[in-house]
Amino acid sequence: MVDQKFVLRAPSNLSPAGAVPLLCAGITTYSAMHHWKVGKGEKVGVVGLGGLRRLAAKLAHGRRAHVAVFTSSPKKKEDALRLGAQEVVVSSDANEMTRRAGSFEFILDSVFADHDLNAFINLLRRDGNLTLLGASPRPLAVSAFSLIMGRRSLSGSPIGGIAETQEMLDFCGKHNTTADVEVIPIQKVSEAYERMRRSDVKYRFSIDMASLKSE
Amino acid sequence: MVDQKFVLRAPSNLSPAGAVPLLCAGITTYSAMHHWKVGKGEKVGVVGLGGLRRLAAKLAHGRRAHVAVFTSSPKKKEDALRLGAQEVVVSSDANEMTRRAGSFEFILDSVFADHDLNAFINLLRRDGNLTLLGASPRPLAVSAFSLIMGRRSLSGSPIGGIAETQEMLDFCGKHNTTADVEVIPIQKVSEAYERMRRSDVKYRFSIDMASLKSE
Repeated sequence: MVDQKFVLRAPSNLSPAGAVPLLCAGITTYSAMHHWKVGKGEKVGVVGLGGLRRLAAKLAHGRRAHVAVFTSSPKKKEDALRLGAQEVVVSSDANEMTRRAGSFEFILDSVFADHDLNAFINLLRRDGNLTLLGASPRPLAVSAFSLIMGRRSLSGSPIGGIAETQEMLDFCGKHNTTADVEVIPIQKVSEAYERMRRSDVKYRFSIDMASLKSE
Repeated sequence: MVDQKFVLRAPSNLSPAGAVPLLCAGITTYSAMHHWKVGKGEKVGVVGLGGLRRLAAKLAHGRRAHVAVFTSSPKKKEDALRLGAQEVVVSSDANEMTRRAGSFEFILDSVFADHDLNAFINLLRRDGNLTLLGASPRPLAVSAFSLIMGRRSLSGSPIGGIAETQEMLDFCGKHNTTADVEVIPIQKVSEAYERMRRSDVKYRFSIDMASLKSE
């Protein structure tokens, strides 16, 4: 039994295994882009870890935005290109960053670790917004001048409600968007947990619940 | 001679001396409230120094918002009440602040000195915005969680353009809003400068340019 207010309808063209992460990483990134009205032709940046970054890039692409993915090291550039973005920016390269100053309408940042937020705020255009999805427990060091010049905003966004989650699933159905997952049987859950800790997953594990029956 | 693109029309019901500060403090506060669509019945907080705070309170009142003015010390409460706000909050009193958590749609902050920004961010409702008009050169310490929970925003705003300045002047004409000024002759400008440094001005000096002729 489940309360019908909490039942979601998954579009039939989406594989259940690939649709499952949409209920967390999908709605988190969708909700922020929807709230800030990311639209056609806008330049959107995605900063953060593989799985969420790839899904955010797909969803922004579905909104017909120009998507740039940020990576902290030149070595990861090839890998980042496979995330499906039109552009990969090495954020540790000051030249690459300076060249893009004032050019982004919207940046999604899901980095949990401490990092230089002002370097990304300075990439925003006038009225641009950077939304945090992840948070370090330590306070962020934010330059007031970077916000004042250009009337920029720094925001946060947690997840989405049930109605918006359904809207996101319908959007993904229309654009045939799912997360990239590796399907595992329930018996491998501990091994998968260890692999996740080593970041050895592209990009989410989905558990095949049918494997419970073979116990 | 002046380029007509830079000529503004002051409504005839406004005294020139009281209208002059509208071109700086007035447009700075008006532009931020206008951009963030401050409207009827919304709860607006104003943090900062006397002159700008008083003008911001008047302008927010003109937008039919409920205006709360923040003051750092209980001793200044009486003085703050004279700023024309419906409510005065002593920001150093943790109880007064906690009781108002999550209740403001919009907060204008024109404090140049270091202060605890998170205490004010936590007063914002869902989707609430705090806009900085003043800036300490040192980075602000911002709690990511305070932004994420409630999808709040921290922004900055510099001033307004010529078209918006005209709009602000017309708005002030309609609401009969001017700054409170002390008119001085040009001969007293050095004395006025010293008094301004001691915060001994309520709330702006306007120089009567006719006094130049008596030189």
